[in-house]
Parts: sequence; structure tokens; C-alpha cells
Amino acid sequence: MTEEEQSRGRLAGAEPGPPAPPELECKNDYAGVEDPESTAGGISSSLEQPLLKRSTTLTASHLALVGAKVSHIESLDYEIIENDLFKHDWRSRSSVEVLQYIFLKWAMAFLVGLLTGVIASLINLANENIAGLKMLQMVNLVRQGRYWAGFFYFAGVNLGLTFVAAVLCVVFAPTAAGPGIPEIKAYLNGIDTPNMFGAPQLIVKIIGSICAVSSGMDLGKEGPLVHIGACLANLLSQGGEGRWRLRLRWLRYFNNDRDRRDLITCGASSGVCAAFRSPVGGVLFALEEVATWWRSALLWRTFFSTATVVVVLRGFIEVCRDGRCGMFGEGGLIIFDVSDVTVRYHVGDLLPVTLVGVLGGVLGALYNHVLHQVLRLYNLINAKGRLAKLALALSVCSFTSAGLYVLPFAVPCTRCDPAFAAGEQCPTVGQSGNFKQFNCPDGYYNDLASLLHATNVDATRNIFSTGTAGEFRLDSLLIFFAIYCVLGLVTFGIAVPSGLFLPIILMGSAYGRILALLLARVVRIDHGLYAVLGAAALMSGSMRMTVSLCVIFLELTNNLLLLPITMFVLLIAKTVGDAFNPSIYEIILDLKGLPFLEAKPEPWMKDLTVGELAAAKPRAVALQVVEKVSAVVEVLRSTPHNGFPVLDRPRPGVSELHGLVLRSHLMAVLRKRWFLAEKRRTEEWEARERFSSAELAEKAGGSVDEVRLTPEEMDMYIDLHPFTNTTPYTVVETMSVAKAVVLFRTCALRHMLIIPKFQGPEISPIVGILTRQDLRAHNILGAFPHLANKRKVH
Amino acid sequence: MTEEEQSRGRLAGAEPGPPAPPELECKNDYAGVEDPESTAGGISSSLEQPLLKRSTTLTASHLALVGAKVSHIESLDYEIIENDLFKHDWRSRSSVEVLQYIFLKWAMAFLVGLLTGVIASLINLANENIAGLKMLQMVNLVRQGRYWAGFFYFAGVNLGLTFVAAVLCVVFAPTAAGPGIPEIKAYLNGIDTPNMFGAPQLIVKIIGSICAVSSGMDLGKEGPLVHIGACLANLLSQGGEGRWRLRLRWLRYFNNDRDRRDLITCGASSGVCAAFRSPVGGVLFALEEVATWWRSALLWRTFFSTATVVVVLRGFIEVCRDGRCGMFGEGGLIIFDVSDVTVRYHVGDLLPVTLVGVLGGVLGALYNHVLHQVLRLYNLINAKGRLAKLALALSVCSFTSAGLYVLPFAVPCTRCDPAFAAGEQCPTVGQSGNFKQFNCPDGYYNDLASLLHATNVDATRNIFSTGTAGEFRLDSLLIFFAIYCVLGLVTFGIAVPSGLFLPIILMGSAYGRILALLLARVVRIDHGLYAVLGAAALMSGSMRMTVSLCVIFLELTNNLLLLPITMFVLLIAKTVGDAFNPSIYEIILDLKGLPFLEAKPEPWMKDLTVGELAAAKPRAVALQVVEKVSAVVEVLRSTPHNGFPVLDRPRPGVSELHGLVLRSHLMAVLRKRWFLAEKRRTEEWEARERFSSAELAEKAGGSVDEVRLTPEEMDMYIDLHPFTNTTPYTVVETMSVAKAVVLFRTCALRHMLIIPKFQGPEISPIVGILTRQDLRAHNILGAFPHLANKRKVH
Repeated sequence: MTEEEQSRGRLAGAEPGPPAPPELECKNDYAGVEDPESTAGGISSSLEQPLLKRSTTLTASHLALVGAKVSHIESLDYEIIENDLFKHDWRSRSSVEVLQYIFLKWAMAFLVGLLTGVIASLINLANENIAGLKMLQMVNLVRQGRYWAGFFYFAGVNLGLTFVAAVLCVVFAPTAAGPGIPEIKAYLNGIDTPNMFGAPQLIVKIIGSICAVSSGMDLGKEGPLVHIGACLANLLSQGGEGRWRLRLRWLRYFNNDRDRRDLITCGASSGVCAAFRSPVGGVLFALEEVATWWRSALLWRTFFSTATVVVVLRGFIEVCRDGRCGMFGEGGLIIFDVSDVTVRYHVGDLLPVTLVGVLGGVLGALYNHVLHQVLRLYNLINAKGRLAKLALALSVCSFTSAGLYVLPFAVPCTRCDPAFAAGEQCPTVGQSGNFKQFNCPDGYYNDLASLLHATNVDATRNIFSTGTAGEFRLDSLLIFFAIYCVLGLVTFGIAVPSGLFLPIILMGSAYGRILALLLARVVRIDHGLYAVLGAAALMSGSMRMTVSLCVIFLELTNNLLLLPITMFVLLIAKTVGDAFNPSIYEIILDLKGLPFLEAKPEPWMKDLTVGELAAAKPRAVALQVVEKVSAVVEVLRSTPHNGFPVLDRPRPGVSELHGLVLRSHLMAVLRKRWFLAEKRRTEEWEARERFSSAELAEKAGGSVDEVRLTPEEMDMYIDLHPFTNTTPYTVVETMSVAKAVVLFRTCALRHMLIIPKFQGPEISPIVGILTRQDLRAHNILGAFPHLANKRKVH
Repeated sequence: MTEEEQSRGRLAGAEPGPPAPPELECKNDYAGVEDPESTAGGISSSLEQPLLKRSTTLTASHLALVGAKVSHIESLDYEIIENDLFKHDWRSRSSVEVLQYIFLKWAMAFLVGLLTGVIASLINLANENIAGLKMLQMVNLVRQGRYWAGFFYFAGVNLGLTFVAAVLCVVFAPTAAGPGIPEIKAYLNGIDTPNMFGAPQLIVKIIGSICAVSSGMDLGKEGPLVHIGACLANLLSQGGEGRWRLRLRWLRYFNNDRDRRDLITCGASSGVCAAFRSPVGGVLFALEEVATWWRSALLWRTFFSTATVVVVLRGFIEVCRDGRCGMFGEGGLIIFDVSDVTVRYHVGDLLPVTLVGVLGGVLGALYNHVLHQVLRLYNLINAKGRLAKLALALSVCSFTSAGLYVLPFAVPCTRCDPAFAAGEQCPTVGQSGNFKQFNCPDGYYNDLASLLHATNVDATRNIFSTGTAGEFRLDSLLIFFAIYCVLGLVTFGIAVPSGLFLPIILMGSAYGRILALLLARVVRIDHGLYAVLGAAALMSGSMRMTVSLCVIFLELTNNLLLLPITMFVLLIAKTVGDAFNPSIYEIILDLKGLPFLEAKPEPWMKDLTVGELAAAKPRAVALQVVEKVSAVVEVLRSTPHNGFPVLDRPRPGVSELHGLVLRSHLMAVLRKRWFLAEKRRTEEWEARERFSSAELAEKAGGSVDEVRLTPEEMDMYIDLHPFTNTTPYTVVETMSVAKAVVLFRTCALRHMLIIPKFQGPEISPIVGILTRQDLRAHNILGAFPHLANKRKVH
């Protein structure tokens, strides 16, 4: 231990920690590393430094995307912790309390659905009205020939809205920027990003999303809605910061990571359901894309939540049916309803449809690649501070406003043709419609204005519209595609709540429609359907989802006959995309440095044993089952680990593994000063008198230095028996890493203890501790580069 | 060891086994029990008898439902077995072989979908034509007034068809009777029912299903199609009996339970997809109802299979479009298409819809209860032999034929009213139609004949038909409901391939339509939609599925607006049904005695440790890592276990756990006579020279007595090092059973070793072995009755 560390680690008001007593001799022999980036104190001793470094792939900051300051990432505890206190707790639960618990679980799922539905309705209402009024005013100015006034009005309102959204994000909740889906995915994989699912994030996300979407930028409300659902779920289950927690006695059973995980899954599917009004799609999205662990019971509970959302949305539409909600029709909800279109396709159509899929996969992969580069650039900009973030957001907004306003002037007007505009008014002025007059004379419409001077949702509906083969000119569509490709790349990384779904849908539908025009001679399928297929292909090529996207598109288009062809396109696009790069969410997870655990171990992991892996790490720090207070303090201060093996000495000279104790439980003991004057084992009731299981379940954070102990207290003892999880998951040192990864991931572990193959008096009972970071492929390859070479040779 | 056992266990041509040598002294100390019912030899020594008996709940036979003789049930090995031979195998795989493997996995999924689709098409074609011709002829006879001739013709054809189906089932493949879904569910849970997924079962299921469905009995082809899909998948991945196996070198990598599990999941979802033409529903059915372990990658692969099925079915419909397939229209495929119906419902409709759900739940639970009793009775009858089975099947067929033929005469004729029969011909003669003339004069139709004198699929389509509020009379519907309730209860357990979906749909739709007539004054929803909701409610009340049923109904009705209301009904019916009894599949699993492991541990399992559980069992039989041949033979002969702990003696007097060896690997060693003259550890290459990993992966069944060994050979040694899985999953004895169950189930284990909390020279390194049977709630309660009492007190 270096001098520097000793001095930095000194207890306030206490003399420097005494040299380790004999009981502690094992302490420095081992040093298991859990979440090395959580070295809040900044330990510099090389002994404590992990050999396996955190992923250095792309960036060193773990929230690099928008550069938010986050204290540290924690892993979640999904394991059943079997210590005396928790055991007593569940034994003493009455059946009334069990019923209470079950009832509450369902009530929570209901509440999550209800609130998500209400909030989604309000966001839609606000968006449609704000954007609608803005458009109306702007078009009026254009009709009067006041082009410059129209531009400044349009750009000014947009900048104002963006400013509000960006300021909220930058000042109050930096983590509310972006879609939030990668962080939810990481949470459900077992990684707790702090300040992600709290009340400030919820509020900023709601207001920010309304402003950002209304400002006409190329971003969707879909991702943010998923995040809103997850925030609601987390707040209801008492996650997040202490001051926002509900302090109901009833809720105390929810104070564990497992129940919170289930509820956040419900929240995420409710969000998708609210975004697309797609209940089954929401459930499948949570299953396919977001959740890491899935139980059959969860299927039912998420389904219940999404059913609630749908009922709320339906009620909302009923209320707004007769124009009682301003400019809000059914607008923000069903994106495109093609249920009345008879879809006919034959084997001969397979070829062009395959083309849509293949090109969609290539474009999606290309989009992922370029977006990755743009995000790395934006990271550098965003890292420069709040003003830089704000400036970036406002520049993107200015660019968007200019593009959207100016481009429609570049295309000629088209004469209204009653053949396409069957039943629809042509041209329309002001109100949302398929044939915007804009700057054209009567009887003519500006097709690009129909697409650009509309909310994104309206634009999608227009471009998807069926039976309108000649409505859009090729040059207009090319311009539309080009501008939205650029906007889709530059908008995502700015500091406002933004979703990825809508930008990709817009790009994809334009691409599909362009392809339809180009293939017009060989294609008999409706152009609107091509737009749908193009959107599906690009989504699949970028996000690499299949079943959930298919169902979302099914529920969006409300036409089941499209299903087989959509499946076909999605599968092709995903296969093609996978040949190039990982999905966009994986890229973002990697950019953010979140230690996501993949489901499948790499093949070369079979060639490495966990024992070899543990040998490459500093050895684990262990505690004795009755330990000196000073030793516990020293261990807590000098290591960042969150779990410590506890050793026992049943006979002199023999050391056995007793279990694993969590840092948070040690902190709770120190805070309560539950110390013993002499070294003895306590009775079970002694601990139970002082500690409730609910208290222990709380995540006691904070630094050990906050607890001020007198020298007398430092000389006392702590009995760890009541707090030690006596049944941690263990593996023998000869197990291959591949098998260990499967165990770690399927059982959702945080710590995995490695025990020696053969035990004996002279052999330590514990070889090491493995955590999430140690089992990530990238980290292992860093420590064992020869495995990577081997991989290539094969 | 008793005298009797010694004599029975004597080796042919060898002297009675010598007394256990000193190395073997641990052998009788432990006796871990795995699948006690697999005691093929019938061991009588009480020492070897399991204390935890197999579930004695309902019946002692594990295939009691149709009384098939099955040799034994085996558990499946999903664990990654890490022994020297397998390790060397995967290390030596080239990247070409890995690509081959990936390509083959996809090709298999494609083939499963393709073949399932083709077979489903052929079954539909055959059904529609056979049943159609039969009906046509019968109606002609009735029109001529030859009522008795009509009856005998009708009953004769039905009896003939049933006879074929039943004889095939009884003689060639008894396990092909019934739907097969519970066995697939059990397989994917890790229970291998032998003779379940082989070629005889496949062929009998196809022909039997065609005959049984065409015979007009109240059974569906849906369950059998799922079984057909699973059989195809199993055969393609070389499961089943040896003589049916594909002997391609390429396929050798599929010779493991894990890949077979994935492919059978694909097969099951393809089957559902083929039955309902519901690709997403098929995937979700596999996920919700059938599969125990689910990976995200599986979602994509099953989706690919179902997409293939849909394309095949679509091609088939195209081919048959212009009447080129006899009487087959689109008949057998889309059950009811209500996409052109505008569904309007409001908050006020919630009350009657709730009623549909609640009553559906109650009726579903009641159906489960009564069917359970009927099946127990049928078990007794079927157990009497082949003739009894045949007689039962023919009696049920006679009863069905009489009921279907006679009942339409009991209702008066109805005048054709152009108001309902909009666009449809009324009355129709012969061909399938909504308004059958049958015995009525011109201008009149017999509404009950429209329902009863049609294939089940046509009957469903008629009863679901929309805009026909007055078509069916209340008394006709009541008769229909009553007869199908009786038929649905008596038909299921007979020895022909039979599905449960269609009988429940028929009952449910009748119940819904009756409710619609009764509530006609307060209800504004279309009567056909009520029939759909009634069917959904009864399905959910009996089968307790939600999301998958919802999607299947969505894809059947082709109307997305029905989705929220269907979800609502399904959730209510499931909740109500769950209050009474378990789902029908769980009841059948229980009746068949299949040791299904539930996902959730019981609450009282937290109060018991695995150590206590192991103490209630005979101790595990262990082997030394270099063991005498005679000792191995003795252990194999005297115990039915499938896995044995292997102990090592690194130092004199010290015994350590080396790993676990499988019975099949020991048998392989005995068969190859890979014996050592002296007691030594072999080099790695020695075993590799004699054994290929592909050979070891084969399930070497058979009795140890088949291997004839000379006395000299019996005195030689076996080195178990190359065969021992050195990294079996272990848990400490203090772990609660609840936590162990979670580990066992999430990691899909077959054996779980219990190690002592503290090790030492005088302590045995292994406390016991836990298997599936030991962790079943029912078995534990048998050994620890006080836990059950405790449960009640709480």
C-alpha cells in the first residue's frame, strides 16, 4: 500500500489506519474487481488496479454520447441473497402480505400502462397543436407572398422550441437526451446507469420531447416514450433518487432489483405501445430488443400494461373525435392505415421485393456506420460543456428549418389530378393534407411541401398513402430522401430527447417510393406499399429487429395480407445488415461504454478457464466472518468492489469459504455502529433487533469516509454472519469461460466466486471473483491477446 | 446387497461379481437418484430405492392418457459437457466447419417450415375432399328421402375412417394419439418421452389426422400439426430411433440435445402457423406455451420457419385458386375473415364483453375439470388393451355420427330471408354454404344442418359469419352447444390423433352466439363477433394463453380493430380460470406423469436447504477416477442413475470431487473395451485414438448385461479422466431449494451436485446429487409433509 494512498484514505478525525492485523493477512492477497470504473476515490495503487481494463474500444467516458456527468455505473443484484436477515424476513411474511404483494404487482403494471397512455396522449395533443398552429401561420405568410417573414417566423419558433428542449436537457437532466432505449436495454441486462430513470428525467423528457418534436426537427417521440414508460415504472417501484421515492409501507416488498426489472420491462413495452398504438408489438419489442431475461409470467404482465395503454388511447381518441382537442384529429396515433387496400402480390413480385430488402440492409448498415462516426464527432463537441451542447442543438435546428422551408421552392408545382386525389381535397391550404398548395397557384400543389411542411407523422402518412402512384415527382422524392438522410445523421446526437424510429421510417419510406418509381414498369404493387416495405427494410437494416418490427408494422398498417411480404423483407434486410456491422443500439451501447453482456459466448471462450482468467486479475480481497472494524473500513476504503468473499476458520489453520457480503450491507453495519466489544459470533436475534430487511434492501450508497468512527470503535469487531449470503454461485476453476458466461448471464449474476478444484489446508478456499466486466469478450481479449489471434487463424 | 440381486445381476458367462474392492468402498455409501422410474431392471434392494418417489398424484403410468407402453422417460442433457474429448473436438473445429454448422442450422429451420407447410397443405386438401364428398353423397340421399340409407352411409364412412385412424394409432404408434402438445412441452422442459418424435409417429399422425378429421368427429388438426412439425424437426436433427436417422457426416454437429431443442421449437411454431396460417401467432405460441428456455436468436429462427410455412401455404392457395384441387377452396386455411366488418364498440359495451370473459373463464375451468375426470376414466378403459382402445374409438365415432345426423331433423325449417343472406345463395344444396337446405322445402333452410353437416372448419366459419344476427335460432344454437360440449368431452381421450383447439373454438363460438341472442336488447356488437369473443374466452379459460391466442385470433379474423377487445376478454377469462384449476395442458402433463419443472419455485421451498433434501435420499453412488471394470459394471447394473460423481485421490487419505460421468459414456467405454491392465492415468491422445466425440454424443442406451466381459477384463481398470465432465454445476448444501430450483431450471440442468459447506479430510467431498425428480414440489412435499402444513398455516 503506497504512502499516498494511506494519506488520502485517512479517516477524518481518526489516526491513520493501523497496519493490517494478523486476521487480515488475506486481504491484500486477493483483489476481485467489480466495475473498475466505479473507482470514485481514484485508487492509484497498481495492486488495486484491474488488469482487465474496461472496454477501451471507442471512448473512455461511459456516457459519452451526450457527455452527461454520471457518478458511476453499478451492476444490479438479481440474485436471491440468502442471509439470515432476509431468510427471517420471508419466513415471517403472512399470506395476507403475499396477497398484498401480488395485488400490488398487478396494480403497478396497470398504473404504468395508465400513466404512459395519458402522458402519450398529452404529448400527441401538444405536438399536433403547437406544430399545427406554427405551420398554419407560416403558410399564411407564404400565401401573402411574405417569404422572408415566413422564414423568420418558422425558424424563430423552431429555434425557440429547440432552445427550451435543449436547456432543459443540458441543465436539469443530461441523461434525458437521446432516446434512452440503450440505457433501458443496459438496465435490463443488469447495468444501472445512475440518474437515468428519476423524476427529473421524466419531466424533462416529457416537456423536451414536446418541444423537440414540435420544432420540426428530424426526430421522433417513440424512443422518448419508451424512456418515459421506464421512468414511470422505476419511480413507482421506488427506484431512482431517495428524495423522489414513495414512502408507502406497502411498497417495501418492491425494494429489490428483480421486481423493478419486471416493472421496467412493462414500462418499456407500454412506451412502444403508446408510440405506435401497437400492443402486441410493444410486448414483442420488449422481448426481442430490450429485455435480457424473460419469463412467461412477464409476457402476461407486459401484455396487461399495453392493453391498458391501448384502452387509454382509444378513450382519448373518442374524446377528441369531434374536434374538441384543437388541431388534433386521430393524427398523432395511427400512422398509416391501409386496411382498405387490397394487396395482391404474386411470385413474380418476389424479385423487386428482394431488392427492397437487400438495399434496405445495405443502406441500414451504411446509416449505422456513418451515424457512428457522427456520434463520435458530436461526443467531442458535447464534451466541451453546456454552451457547446446548446450551440450544437441550435445549429442543427437552424439547418433543419432552413432546409425544410427553402427546398419546396425548388420544385415546380404539379397540377391537381382527380385520378389520384380521389375524394381528397386538392390543393389544401393550411390544414394538414396530402396536396399542399403552398406557393402554387390554384389548382396546383407543391408535392415537396406536402412532405416537408407537415409534422413528421403527417409526412409519413402522406408518403405512405396508397393509390397515389403519380402524386410525388421523382425529383421531389430524391430531394426529400437526401435532406432526410442528412438530417437523420446530424440530428440524433444533439442534447434533446430524440427517437430514432421516425427518422429511419421517413428515410426508408422515401427510399421505397423512389424505388417504386424507378421500377414502375416491372412493379405492380402499389407505391404506398413500397414505401411501407422500404421503411421496414431500413428499420430492420439498422435496428436488426424482426418479429417486433413485423408486428409493429402490422398494427400500423392494419393490413394482415402485408404480413408475409413484410416478414420476407425484414429477414433479408437483417441478414444483409448483420453482414456489415452490429445494430444501431449495440453501437450506441458500445459508444456509451456500457458493459453489456451478450447472450452467446464467443467460440474462443471455450479455450480459457475461469481459473486462468482469475489469475490474470489482482486477487480478491476477502474478509473474515468476524472481522475487526478497522479492517472492514480499510477494505471498503481501499477497494471499489461491491462484494467481498467471507472466510471462516472452523478449525485453527483451516480457512473455508463462508459466503459473500455486499458493500451496501457493510456500509449499513458501519452506519448503525453495530459493533462487538469482543470477537464472538452473535445470536440471530441480535442482528434482527437492529436491522430490518427493508433497510438492508435499500441501496446504501455513499463513501465510507462519511462514517466517522472513534479509535475505540475501530478496535471493535463486526460479526458478518447475519449479513453474509451463504449461498453465492460458485464455479470450479477448471470451468471454461464459455460455460461460466452462460451461467452468469442466464442466472443474472453480479458476482461469481471461483473455488479451487482441490481443496486443502494449504490452499486458499477462493480463487477469485468474476464480475460482468471480467466476462466481457473485449476485456478478456485485452488480457489474452493470443486468443484473438487464434480466432483469426481458425 | 441381497442374494437375489446378485443372482439377477450376474454377468452371462462371468462369475458372480466379486465383493467390492477397497477402492470401491464409497460406492454403496451414496446413491443419488435420477429418474427413479427408469428402473428398467427392477431393482429391489431398499438401499437403491429412492426415498423421494415419483409423483403419485393421479396415475402411476407415465403415459396413462392413451396407455401406450413406453420403456422409460429420460431427462435431456442441455449442459455443456466439458470433458477432454469434447474439449478437443471443439478446439479442432475449423472455421469452415463452423460456417457449415451455421448454414445447416438455417437450412434445417427452412426445411422444417417447408415440409410442415407442404404436409399441412396435403392434410387440408385430403380433409376437404374426403369430408366434402361424404357430405355431398349423404345430402343427396336425404334429398331423395332415403333417410335410413343416408344415415348408414354417413355412419359407415365415418366408422371406416375412424377405424383406419385408430388401428394405425393402436398398432404402430400409440404415442401418436392425442395432440402431442404436452409431450412437446415436456421435451422442451427437458423430458425425453421415447417413441414420441420418430418416423412412425410422423406417418401415423399424418394419415391418422386426415382420417380422424374427415370422419366428422369433434377434433381438430391443429394439435397434430404441431406434433408433425416437431417430429419433422426431430428427424432432421437425427433424433428418434437409430434406424430412421440420417447418416450424413455434415449432420454430426447436431447430435446434441441443445440444437435439437431449438429445432423442435421451430417445428412446434411451424405447426401452429400451418394450422391457423398465423406466423406471428405460431412464434408466440411456442414462446408462451411450449418453450421453457428462450433465447432472442430463437425468436428469429422460429420466425424464419413460420415465414416459410406461410409462403408455402400461400403458394398452395394460388395453385388451388381455380378449383384445381377438387372441393378445396381456401377452405381449410383461413377460418374466418372479418376484415371487411367495421367494428364499432364503445365504453358501454364493456359490460357484456366482461360477461363473455367471466363466463368463458368459468366454463373453461369447468371443461378442464370434467375433461380431467373423463380422461381418468378413459385411462382405465385404454389400459385394458388394443381392442378396448379400438372399441372406445369406434363407440365415440358412432355416437358422434348419430348425433350429427339426427339432430338437424329435430329443428324446424327457417324461411330464407334476403336480409341476412345478402349476396349468399339460400338455400344451398350439397356444397358447403351458410344456408343448407337439407330436409327442408325450397326457400327454406335448416340452420342446425348448416352447422352440423359441415366440416368443423366450415361450421366455425358459418357460426362466425357476420351480419347474420337472425340466421341461427336460439334452440338450434343450444342444441349445437350441448352436443359439442358432450362431444368435446368424450372425444379427446380416444386413440386417434386429435387436437383440442377446434372443439374448444366450436363450443366457445356457440356459447358466444347464444349470449349474443340472449343479450340482444342491450348489445350492439355483431353476433359473429360475439362468437369470436366467446371462442377466445373459452380458449383462454381452458388453455390459459393470452398473447399468443390474441395474435392467433388477430391473424384469423384479419381485423385489427378487434384487438383491444380480444385482449380484454382473454385477460379476464385467464384470470377467472386460474382461480379454479391449472390449464388443460398442465392437467394432461400431470395425468401422463411427466415430471415437468415449473418456472417459479414454491414459497415454502425457501425453508428447506438442498442439504436436507439430499439427506432424505439414499446417498449418491460415486466412482473413482481410475476404477476397476468390475466396479463400474456393478454400479451400472445395480443403479438406474444416469450420472455418477467421480472422485479423485490426489493425496492418500484425501478424497476430492473430480467431476461427473454420464452412464452413456461409461457404456461406450465398456462396449469398446477400452481397459487398462494396470491402474494408471492415461495420456490424452490414448482415448482420442479410440473415441470420437461424435460417438460419445450418441445416446448409447442398452443394458450393461449386453456387454459380455471375461473375468480377466473384469479385473482390469478404466481411466475416467477423458470422459469426466470436470465442471458440473455445484451448489453448497446450505442453499435453499428455491434458489437451487431457479438455477436448475434457468440453466437447464440434468444433474446438480451438492458439495459440503466445509471440506476436510474426514468429510466426503460430495453431499448428493439432485435431479429433476428431486426438485419437483410434489415429490418434496411427499418427503417433507410438514412443509405442506406450514404452507397452509401461512
